[in-house]
Amino acid sequence: MLIVDTLTDQPGPLLEAIDSPTDLRGLSLPQMEQLAREIRETIIATVAETGGHLAPSLGVVELTLALHYVFDTPRDRLIWDVGHQVYAHKLITGRRNRFQTLRRHKGISGFPKRSESDYDTVETGHSSTSVSHGLGMAAAKAIQGDRSKVVAVIGDGSMTAGMAFEGLNHAGDLDRDLIVVLNDNEMSISKNVGALSSFLSRKMTGKMVRRLRDHIEERLLALSSVGENILTMLRKSEESIKGLFTPGMLFEALKFKYVGPIPGHELGDLIATLENVRDHNHGPVLVHVITTKGKGYPPAETHPGDYHGIGPFDAATGQPRKTPSAPVSYTQVFGDTLCRLARQDQRLVAITAAMPGGTGMLPFAAEFPDRFFDVGIAEQHAVSFAAGLALEGLRPVFAVYSSFMQRALDQLIHDVCLPNLPVVIALDRSGVVGADGPTHHGVFDLSFLRFIPNLTVMSPKDENELQQMLFTALHHQGPVVIRYPRGSGEGVPLDASFCRLEIGKGELLREGSDMLLLPLGNRVFPALAAAERLAASGIDAAVINPRFVRPLDSELITAWATRTGRVITIEDNCILGGFGSGVLQLLHQRGLHLPATILGYPDHFVEHGPQAVLWADAGIDADGIVRSAKALLS
Amino acid sequence: MLIVDTLTDQPGPLLEAIDSPTDLRGLSLPQMEQLAREIRETIIATVAETGGHLAPSLGVVELTLALHYVFDTPRDRLIWDVGHQVYAHKLITGRRNRFQTLRRHKGISGFPKRSESDYDTVETGHSSTSVSHGLGMAAAKAIQGDRSKVVAVIGDGSMTAGMAFEGLNHAGDLDRDLIVVLNDNEMSISKNVGALSSFLSRKMTGKMVRRLRDHIEERLLALSSVGENILTMLRKSEESIKGLFTPGMLFEALKFKYVGPIPGHELGDLIATLENVRDHNHGPVLVHVITTKGKGYPPAETHPGDYHGIGPFDAATGQPRKTPSAPVSYTQVFGDTLCRLARQDQRLVAITAAMPGGTGMLPFAAEFPDRFFDVGIAEQHAVSFAAGLALEGLRPVFAVYSSFMQRALDQLIHDVCLPNLPVVIALDRSGVVGADGPTHHGVFDLSFLRFIPNLTVMSPKDENELQQMLFTALHHQGPVVIRYPRGSGEGVPLDASFCRLEIGKGELLREGSDMLLLPLGNRVFPALAAAERLAASGIDAAVINPRFVRPLDSELITAWATRTGRVITIEDNCILGGFGSGVLQLLHQRGLHLPATILGYPDHFVEHGPQAVLWADAGIDADGIVRSAKALLS
Repeated sequence: MLIVDTLTDQPGPLLEAIDSPTDLRGLSLPQMEQLAREIRETIIATVAETGGHLAPSLGVVELTLALHYVFDTPRDRLIWDVGHQVYAHKLITGRRNRFQTLRRHKGISGFPKRSESDYDTVETGHSSTSVSHGLGMAAAKAIQGDRSKVVAVIGDGSMTAGMAFEGLNHAGDLDRDLIVVLNDNEMSISKNVGALSSFLSRKMTGKMVRRLRDHIEERLLALSSVGENILTMLRKSEESIKGLFTPGMLFEALKFKYVGPIPGHELGDLIATLENVRDHNHGPVLVHVITTKGKGYPPAETHPGDYHGIGPFDAATGQPRKTPSAPVSYTQVFGDTLCRLARQDQRLVAITAAMPGGTGMLPFAAEFPDRFFDVGIAEQHAVSFAAGLALEGLRPVFAVYSSFMQRALDQLIHDVCLPNLPVVIALDRSGVVGADGPTHHGVFDLSFLRFIPNLTVMSPKDENELQQMLFTALHHQGPVVIRYPRGSGEGVPLDASFCRLEIGKGELLREGSDMLLLPLGNRVFPALAAAERLAASGIDAAVINPRFVRPLDSELITAWATRTGRVITIEDNCILGGFGSGVLQLLHQRGLHLPATILGYPDHFVEHGPQAVLWADAGIDADGIVRSAKALLS
Repeated sequence: MLIVDTLTDQPGPLLEAIDSPTDLRGLSLPQMEQLAREIRETIIATVAETGGHLAPSLGVVELTLALHYVFDTPRDRLIWDVGHQVYAHKLITGRRNRFQTLRRHKGISGFPKRSESDYDTVETGHSSTSVSHGLGMAAAKAIQGDRSKVVAVIGDGSMTAGMAFEGLNHAGDLDRDLIVVLNDNEMSISKNVGALSSFLSRKMTGKMVRRLRDHIEERLLALSSVGENILTMLRKSEESIKGLFTPGMLFEALKFKYVGPIPGHELGDLIATLENVRDHNHGPVLVHVITTKGKGYPPAETHPGDYHGIGPFDAATGQPRKTPSAPVSYTQVFGDTLCRLARQDQRLVAITAAMPGGTGMLPFAAEFPDRFFDVGIAEQHAVSFAAGLALEGLRPVFAVYSSFMQRALDQLIHDVCLPNLPVVIALDRSGVVGADGPTHHGVFDLSFLRFIPNLTVMSPKDENELQQMLFTALHHQGPVVIRYPRGSGEGVPLDASFCRLEIGKGELLREGSDMLLLPLGNRVFPALAAAERLAASGIDAAVINPRFVRPLDSELITAWATRTGRVITIEDNCILGGFGSGVLQLLHQRGLHLPATILGYPDHFVEHGPQAVLWADAGIDADGIVRSAKALLS
């Protein structure tokens, strides 16, 4: 047990001497165990300051040490699925001295990053890619006669995504030397769902066991060589059957060799098993390791979901350090509104892909358990499952982070928008998200949504508009995406009653004669502030809140564009193909060839950093809008 | 056996009397068998004229009759995965008299379509969505207290897509009344791949059996109650073990009840089994039906891959009716070039997602079997697997249809473009594809590719440029998409040697002073023809082949836009967010506010019809370009 009141983010004496995994390979087992303790202390103390993915990283400290001890990294490739569990990996691969900069602007990333280290094989942040990456590497090594190893570490939660299945299915067929380490903590981000999960967790229900037993009996009876004694044995004990059917069977069916389960916090066992696999295995093998998410930090062990990704906290108590005055978040307003609307409308059902907490749906799940569906990490299925619900007259709302919605573009086009079904996508974490960086920024969604026929895309200027948009969406006879950002709302009061917004109608917030500012969603308030400041400089800017990205309010926008003669669009999205691009197309269709500036993120991936810094860097905060307005006039 | 020389596309006497499945329910078994024969004749005779998905539809004639006979369609929902096997379904659900218009312009669709019939539950065309759709419907029915049934029919090929696994995993967990019919013909479009496939096909290898036996022995030995006699039995015969491990086990593990396998062309067996499932089943059940793809038409049974989707053919001989003078297709030039390049460059490897024939890679697969990977219907995995290959220094080329690439947007962004890996995507079937219609048109790709950082996007004006672009892409240090259309090339000669095109440089094809035409890819020749005709009317149009959608040739384009003062962009893509949208953004960034017309598909899904008709409808053929040019000048 860790003594949480003596924590320091200074590395302990053993960790202080580890500059690379080579240094690790000279340690004794007790030294490795001591090193694991030092690493845990450093991670807890650092994440208490920086925030980050605490519980996943604490769960794999021993596994990380064992893997680097046994395998010849970086020549042997080590791939961390999702990549949110790499803090121990970073500490022992040359980033100990920069570890306090974790997730900070210009500091080290919270995810693997090749530009930081040769030990990071590939950038990741989304789940379930490691088997595919690893199989590609193993196939390439086989072609090139390279006998070094490839190890993909994947959580049991990530196994629920279809992509992992696609990778395993191909790996079993291709028969290359790929080691998949299943890091089984019976959790994805929150509690796991899905039939596979209960299979993996070895908690087979009586019903399942009986069914399998019946199945086997039937098969055995058909074999002439089987005597009654076997059937008697089978009938004798459900426990025998439970023992017979292990997670291994599923992977064996996919032609993997199965090893395990192994206790994931016993360094000796881990090392011995991995050495054995390293030295004697050929073809695809799955090593099943049982770990405890949040291991070694009691609050995280008890509430691993809360400590999955966490802001700064008090290490002694585990309590989050919050700014108590911050307005309620968009996410929370969404969740509360969903409950209020569900009380009025029996048709409303809600879906999450393994993020009931992150998307604000826990209150809904508690109040309406029969109308709530957690489908696991399975965005593709989530969208088409929603389509099925809509086809039978219900009104499904799928809340999902913008960057994860990239997984379900085809399902949105093919299964929802082509049949024009009333599915609502609540697109949380749109725009830059801050410390999680490029894999998690939602800066492409306007560009990959804007062209889809039949789809309505809205973005609220504040949390009050969010609730009205959700109400509006649920009364619309077609698919709707509502795009809103990570973090606090604007602090505006919430209307007590709902009203429907007119589809495709924006609102004029400020008249002006010199130019038209067209800020989308969370850029409306900065644009209003910019307009105030421009007014002080004698520049008279009109401001329209467009509300809708599609359909655009062509009348209002072209009227004020014509009146002012200049347009600036502002969006928390990339410049290419997004809202501003749509406004340009609209103006040209209307024969208006005006000076127009499109503000947003330029054509490269946005690094991690505080939202305010990233907005300022892109020139989409009030300062930047003022600068662009003056430039457009000069 | 069908007598192919007496075929007629006139429905036989029994089929002539079937206006809806209600009429079916009064038939005797021999009558149903006769009806199946009549349906096959009509399908073969019609598809011989119209082209279409012959082999899949022939494989499910009895299954279709049995399902409509047993279930109370359309109240009970029947979902056809992919939807390319619905010809029998269409014939008995009120579309017999329009069947000769199959896949023809303004005729009935080759896929399910709700506007045609209440019996079509949802539009489909992409694989592996039926379990998700069906589970959503079943969940909605449970909430609403509706006891009617939901049946999803899915092929074993579609099971290789991760999305199907996501649906099954959730279905097992949710425990609603969902009937999944596994239509197992051991084929997807061509021969199936993947570990699951060999499991399903019951062709367990000796190695697999031995591995499973070892596994069980180990488990049994750990149980004190197990005697040596059981182990002896297990050791005695590999066949016993093979019998023990059936496909059912895998589905049982996912908490499905398993029924089967059932012979899929025996109407009596099918009906009895389905009635039993209908009347006695609760919770998710999988009915395993063994069918023969192409059943009843000897050429299709023998070569089901060739008859999966086929153009018009001679029913008597099975030989395709081809225009012998048509130039070689883009697909074939791609495939031939890939082989030529692979002979020079050991690093080149190729990937398909279950479409080795359709993408033109059969010659490559034959010549370079160790460098060719068919990953199954698994576009997500394909892209990230390619990333893994590239990380180890190889040069992977993934050839995929444009509309299926929608499945792998996240993998392209997150796994390829973020780490900036040299993966080449050969995007076949871009633009409208013709008779397959809205699910298969590749009219969105420019819009969902244009904004991705690090990505290079090219499109060749002809098949010679295609080969040079492929060569260029393989020498570029980053991800590249090459977009080319379905069908014949332009008939130009192919250069004997390869040369690298300069990245981001277009070519001026024609000087002109009145306007700039910017046609992309397959629109270049129509634009040149339009420029000729405009010249005859005294309008002098410059024509640039941009070659690159990103990066755009900003110098060349802005220079000629400035010189001419007017721009028309033309693309075989939707108008919103595509190539023309990018040109508009470029011009505005350069401070050019010119009249510009963007030609492409308007903001709705494009129906099926011949490519030439669809191009003309959208005004992107030579006629349309001439019209737009004159309108822009007036």
